[in-house]
Amino acid sequence: MEVNYEPMWESLGLDLAAHDELLRILGEGYSNIFLSQENRPEGMSYFDFVMSEVHGLRVKELIDGQNEGRKVIGSFCVFVPEEIVRAADATLVGLCTGADFATDEVDKLLPRNTCALIKSAFGFKLGKVCPYIEAADMLVGENTCDGKKKSFEVLGRLVDNLYVMDIPQMKSSEGRTLLRAEYARFKDAVEELTGISIDGARLKRGIEITNNKRRAVHRLNSFRCADPAPISGLDALLANQVYFYDDPVRFADSVNKISDELEPRVQSGEGTFPKGTPRILMSGCPMAVPNWKVPWIIETSGAVIVGEEACVGERGTQNLTSDAGKTIEELMENILDRYFQIDCAVFTPNPDRQQHIEEMYERYNADGVIHYGLQFCQPYQFESMNVETALEKKGIPTLRIDTDYSMEDVGQLKTRIEAFIERISQL
Amino acid sequence: MEVNYEPMWESLGLDLAAHDELLRILGEGYSNIFLSQENRPEGMSYFDFVMSEVHGLRVKELIDGQNEGRKVIGSFCVFVPEEIVRAADATLVGLCTGADFATDEVDKLLPRNTCALIKSAFGFKLGKVCPYIEAADMLVGENTCDGKKKSFEVLGRLVDNLYVMDIPQMKSSEGRTLLRAEYARFKDAVEELTGISIDGARLKRGIEITNNKRRAVHRLNSFRCADPAPISGLDALLANQVYFYDDPVRFADSVNKISDELEPRVQSGEGTFPKGTPRILMSGCPMAVPNWKVPWIIETSGAVIVGEEACVGERGTQNLTSDAGKTIEELMENILDRYFQIDCAVFTPNPDRQQHIEEMYERYNADGVIHYGLQFCQPYQFESMNVETALEKKGIPTLRIDTDYSMEDVGQLKTRIEAFIERISQL
Repeated sequence: MEVNYEPMWESLGLDLAAHDELLRILGEGYSNIFLSQENRPEGMSYFDFVMSEVHGLRVKELIDGQNEGRKVIGSFCVFVPEEIVRAADATLVGLCTGADFATDEVDKLLPRNTCALIKSAFGFKLGKVCPYIEAADMLVGENTCDGKKKSFEVLGRLVDNLYVMDIPQMKSSEGRTLLRAEYARFKDAVEELTGISIDGARLKRGIEITNNKRRAVHRLNSFRCADPAPISGLDALLANQVYFYDDPVRFADSVNKISDELEPRVQSGEGTFPKGTPRILMSGCPMAVPNWKVPWIIETSGAVIVGEEACVGERGTQNLTSDAGKTIEELMENILDRYFQIDCAVFTPNPDRQQHIEEMYERYNADGVIHYGLQFCQPYQFESMNVETALEKKGIPTLRIDTDYSMEDVGQLKTRIEAFIERISQL
Repeated sequence: MEVNYEPMWESLGLDLAAHDELLRILGEGYSNIFLSQENRPEGMSYFDFVMSEVHGLRVKELIDGQNEGRKVIGSFCVFVPEEIVRAADATLVGLCTGADFATDEVDKLLPRNTCALIKSAFGFKLGKVCPYIEAADMLVGENTCDGKKKSFEVLGRLVDNLYVMDIPQMKSSEGRTLLRAEYARFKDAVEELTGISIDGARLKRGIEITNNKRRAVHRLNSFRCADPAPISGLDALLANQVYFYDDPVRFADSVNKISDELEPRVQSGEGTFPKGTPRILMSGCPMAVPNWKVPWIIETSGAVIVGEEACVGERGTQNLTSDAGKTIEELMENILDRYFQIDCAVFTPNPDRQQHIEEMYERYNADGVIHYGLQFCQPYQFESMNVETALEKKGIPTLRIDTDYSMEDVGQLKTRIEAFIERISQL
């Protein structure tokens, strides 16, 4: 690392020793998992750089922006409308999770039966190793699952800038009314935070910036339908993960550059894995950096991941926000239209998700589905049982995994995943 | 048992052998736990009779009522407004839970990390041992916690008469609007089921019947403030449990008869336990018949339970519904007012519950609080940590228990509870 970020991290109140250790482990894991891959697109070097600077340059950019008046808003969920944040020249960043940290401290605040994702977010906060949560001007929580909903009550006692957004549980007209009111309240809160009044032109720009990120990911994903797959699932997941952190315009450009590379790859039949490699669709809970455990096991066991039906994946990026109309009211309604389609398992019933899984299975020419559930994530664990039954009934091989961020079950998972790949290879 | 209920149970599709075994265990447990108590009020003989006939006479009454056109509606939650059900001459009954049953079958349908209460409800259904769920004309589920919300999707595939009620997560104006709309929709559904149009006079009568049940329980509880306590916590819990099953008018009369007995008991300083017995306030998850494990441990370890801050308890029975007004609109708004106050942990934030616990602690002259959490019940497990911290900060001794319906942890619980009673005895 050329630049010395220590003064910046110190000013954010990070625990430098613990943070150094985190970066060391992160760098080592990244090197082992990502840099060891073969036939990577050249364009992935951008993401290698981003990851090497994930707590460095990107955080410095945010702070430099803050010094010029750009606010930073941290979020844990794809229900927070980035369009509104961008319309006020603010930056939306995903907050750290994806690895166990400060577990003893976390266990004093959260029930043991809390999912790894929530525990991890608290671990990063309590262990003082997430520069994003420390730098953010505003944190946005949301009432999605019980675990998050109730954990934000706890987080609210640790920070003084938490804003909580209510989320409906049903896609009823009352549910839609609630989300509309919540997005209007959020717009007001963003305006108050930034001092910027969001007009139609600003919101339209916010929609454009956000849609462009989505379009870039859609384009990248379109090449993953090909056999051989021109990019690994790990690299595609990484792009989906960086989606939540990076400058949106630069991100879209960088992903498009990778697509420019993938296009001729696909045309010439070139891939990261040999043609005929068993193809896996991942479905379920989101995987945040550095949670690469299961994809890494899959792609070192002879299969390739061709799609992610998850919040860090197509559940988060599918569907553009319409930019039709000019008034705030019209554009806010477009935003509502787009987000109210999100097929998160907190909704009941949630048939769209099952359809989306089946549609992705077809579109990506997958050979099987691996459902990734985090232990104690009740909404996705409940749905996983029905997803498995419904898919198997249609002849789609499905493996249901429940795990956490520990490495204790790697051996057992590898055995199960290898057996599953063996099964789909014989079809 | 004099009457032969087998033909009735058979016609409901019960598994007679399994059901016999359930009744045998239930009877044995009831005898050991309840009939072995000393100094019980005479009036408890009514509840002894009710329990001895819990799957017999009461079910026969419901079926006889159905033959005369009275519909039966089964529910799992105190958010289902009994006033509306009574207004249509229908009967609301709580559905079976509180004991493990058909666990192998349940594990095929629900995630392992599901709370005992939900698993148990499914166990009674899958094991074909709950006459109430089989007899009910309509089942009402509700979107309270994630576990229930998602489990009703599964239940909906097992039965054809499930109605799901949405519940807000915040006590906002939108939350109130949602609950208002849901209660209006429920009224329509009850009208359709029963063929009865609910007018103001009917709804007023429904409010009166339901309030009278509540008043009877309030009066009973008022005597529990005395030292010595004139009734055991187990017997009071039993009354709260039967509240969900019994004919409402007969229930209120029977509870009032017990109160008529308790009044002179209190005046003469007579109790079920000696004066000065350590007094426990229970708080947390609901306990349905036959879940008497923790109260039984407490009251055989030298303490008496003087109050229940739970849905089967004061969270369920506190607050009357106002009968002011005459029109349907006015009375429906009164119902909304009453139910929107329920301080269930599914709400965020939920400060009223903490206040209620502290108020009950004072009112019942308790010496300590035992928080009863069901494992995997995220809303109450989350709140329990804050409840404990807040109470201990005020000098109120608090013991936090997480358990399920198995008997495996009885020894360990007894040790912890005895130590807690020892602690509060020395204050």
